[in-house]
Amino acid sequence: MSKRNDKIRLAAFNFSGMYSQGWRHPDVQSDGENDFDWQVTFARTAERGLFDMIFMADESSLARPISDRDMLSRLSSVAGFEPATLMAALAACTQHVGLVHTMSTTYEQPYYLARQLASIDKISKGRAGWNLVTSGNPNEAANFGVKGGTTLHADRYRRAAEFHHVVTGLWDSIEDDAFLLDKEGGRYLDPEKIHALAHEGEFFSVKGPLRGGRSPQGHPIIAQAGASGEGRDLGSRTADVVFCSTHFIEDAQAFYADMKQRTVAHGRQASDLKIFPGTSIVWGETQSQAEDRFDEISRLYPDEIALENITGAVQLDVSNYDLDGPFPDLPPTRGMQGHQRAISAFAKHNNLSIRQTAQRLASSSKHRVLVGTTQSIVDNLEEWFMGYAADGFVIMNPYRLRSLEDVVTHIVPELQRRGLFRTAYEGKTLRENLGLSRPESRFAATRAVRSPDVG
Amino acid sequence: MSKRNDKIRLAAFNFSGMYSQGWRHPDVQSDGENDFDWQVTFARTAERGLFDMIFMADESSLARPISDRDMLSRLSSVAGFEPATLMAALAACTQHVGLVHTMSTTYEQPYYLARQLASIDKISKGRAGWNLVTSGNPNEAANFGVKGGTTLHADRYRRAAEFHHVVTGLWDSIEDDAFLLDKEGGRYLDPEKIHALAHEGEFFSVKGPLRGGRSPQGHPIIAQAGASGEGRDLGSRTADVVFCSTHFIEDAQAFYADMKQRTVAHGRQASDLKIFPGTSIVWGETQSQAEDRFDEISRLYPDEIALENITGAVQLDVSNYDLDGPFPDLPPTRGMQGHQRAISAFAKHNNLSIRQTAQRLASSSKHRVLVGTTQSIVDNLEEWFMGYAADGFVIMNPYRLRSLEDVVTHIVPELQRRGLFRTAYEGKTLRENLGLSRPESRFAATRAVRSPDVG
Repeated sequence: MSKRNDKIRLAAFNFSGMYSQGWRHPDVQSDGENDFDWQVTFARTAERGLFDMIFMADESSLARPISDRDMLSRLSSVAGFEPATLMAALAACTQHVGLVHTMSTTYEQPYYLARQLASIDKISKGRAGWNLVTSGNPNEAANFGVKGGTTLHADRYRRAAEFHHVVTGLWDSIEDDAFLLDKEGGRYLDPEKIHALAHEGEFFSVKGPLRGGRSPQGHPIIAQAGASGEGRDLGSRTADVVFCSTHFIEDAQAFYADMKQRTVAHGRQASDLKIFPGTSIVWGETQSQAEDRFDEISRLYPDEIALENITGAVQLDVSNYDLDGPFPDLPPTRGMQGHQRAISAFAKHNNLSIRQTAQRLASSSKHRVLVGTTQSIVDNLEEWFMGYAADGFVIMNPYRLRSLEDVVTHIVPELQRRGLFRTAYEGKTLRENLGLSRPESRFAATRAVRSPDVG
Repeated sequence: MSKRNDKIRLAAFNFSGMYSQGWRHPDVQSDGENDFDWQVTFARTAERGLFDMIFMADESSLARPISDRDMLSRLSSVAGFEPATLMAALAACTQHVGLVHTMSTTYEQPYYLARQLASIDKISKGRAGWNLVTSGNPNEAANFGVKGGTTLHADRYRRAAEFHHVVTGLWDSIEDDAFLLDKEGGRYLDPEKIHALAHEGEFFSVKGPLRGGRSPQGHPIIAQAGASGEGRDLGSRTADVVFCSTHFIEDAQAFYADMKQRTVAHGRQASDLKIFPGTSIVWGETQSQAEDRFDEISRLYPDEIALENITGAVQLDVSNYDLDGPFPDLPPTRGMQGHQRAISAFAKHNNLSIRQTAQRLASSSKHRVLVGTTQSIVDNLEEWFMGYAADGFVIMNPYRLRSLEDVVTHIVPELQRRGLFRTAYEGKTLRENLGLSRPESRFAATRAVRSPDVG
């Protein structure tokens, strides 16, 4: 195994309702998601573990329409905080950990979004990040006056690309050294360092500049998770971090290689983009203790939730098959074939029935799950990292805070012992901790080129 | 003077750029607005003074187009934080003081706005408030793709009324007791307590319900400042707190009486709406020390800023008059006649020239200013309160934090000594401290009427 010069990065995943039955676990505070003090403990636990960031996913709707009352009654996805305000508050309660959250390019206004993210970056002194998503969920569309479902996939991605261009332009519109604060001369700022954006595009017309000035990171970190062609293109062009869901190292390596290649093709360094596969960790002192714990979690998921979950994942109604027989050969589906193939292979490799596979998938939220001891889990993370399947991992937490505590207490020290993980935060900002350079304002760069003699 | 049963309420005003030259004052941290630690100190100072709330105004643009470079260079309005994120962060750094900020009904999406305010209310455990505004500023319009200036005044107010209806409906859409958290039965919530809003109106189509659940106050406090007919109508119908700018007690009493009358006409109690005139305080040990201090502040404002300010206030170009002669009789203008009359009367009462009046107005941000000792300032506040010109005051802070500290250190104790101000916070939420009842969810109210037998 070749040596890598960099180290593993870690993100702690937080999304109310992701593990929709996790709230029923005996070790879990059932209303934790709705409790700000619980959220502070979660963030501080990640910081205690020297995590690069917490990552909060989001949707601007319930996970279900309320017509589906029976299912809705079991899910914790109704609860929780709005992520921008939560991250701002957590910024005041932490000192090092990065704070990355989802905001949508489909319904937001770029001026508001740019300003809120820059503001969180200032409050946190350089630890904000934006998980840039497009919204294809019809439940969300109905909350923003979009009738008849959602906008087309390609339109959403064109809009996202323009949205990104506007937001980063606004972040650049007031240069870092614009503020003079000259009390005697009465000059608060240098007006030459303030720029209109004057953007006129297909979707947006935004004049700028952005009230508030440039933030500590210049640009808050940008994360993305799109796996489609459009998603990969946008991510490799604009993201600092890409989250993904891959079950097998070969798939992860292929995704990793493809994304790095695309990144270089866009004129960036391969190391400018960090790949983070989602990874659920269920830890035990012994393998059988870990297995028991995973069984305990899986049993929290009633059949209909588990089966619905796998139906969504393989894009086939599995109820026509023998749920307790061996996992069948499924006919190929349109779309998501890689996902279906991965799930079939996973089930067959582990001799699981459809029902067992469904429970495992539900209790891992469709991400890969490592059930084992400190040694076996760290072996796997090391293999993926050293094999260029990952630059870091989004740690999913199937039994919430207790899951994260297990990782911080048992997995992190072993990663450190093997020299694979930091023993102290390297920098002050999220960007510095990720080893990423700070972008110069595009306007400062332009002036430097135009007027070399006046600097 | 008749006795009142209630007490004076206080709000501490914070708006980067409001006192556009305040940053030059020798006692002021020039980059305070941009410094989160300064913002925390400001909020904690208000809390030390047992203020009901801090109130953060906002605009989604710079105060000037960047073509006006010379003027722009002198103003601090470029700096500062986005208010929703700042209030969320301050919620984590304070325990009692209310946190009220401006968000616009003209460009925001009601779903986002409702969710962010509810989230801040949860983070602060019941201390959030929304200053509901419409945006008529063309600098803002240009940041949201609105070409050729802004939308019409009446359209903005119709939109604001519908926006308010949607936001409060979303706040009601998940009832207070919806969360069952029944681990054994696997029921996270009671689906009967969750309601679609299904709003279809002139401006918005919003299905709901609101992700996150009902917040501690039910509805975060709503503040408004509209003085036009439409503004007064909306405020008296929907607001808990109305901010206003009145220079003379007679004008304030007339406004107070009109707003209370309108409130009652809408079927509410007169005490459901609290009136807060803006009041700048410049304190001194002696009257002459206070006057010297005010002169020192006034001198920070260069002629062109001061004169431009008064030109805006009286809606006339005053540069055609002798700036250092006695304040002239100005011809009547279209609109803002009350304001012009008040300024003329103020100038003549104090024997001020146009230039002196302009400086005073600039350094008080067009609000009334009390320059005096503890006794004279508290006498005035008592007169306005007892005379039903005010239920409370928005304390403007012309030399920023130092201004607020003077009020907390000198004015608050004398108000307390006279029995006019609290000596401890009465309640846990902003609503409780303001003596306002907590609104029931409109859906719970409907069900109670429909099905009295099942409660």
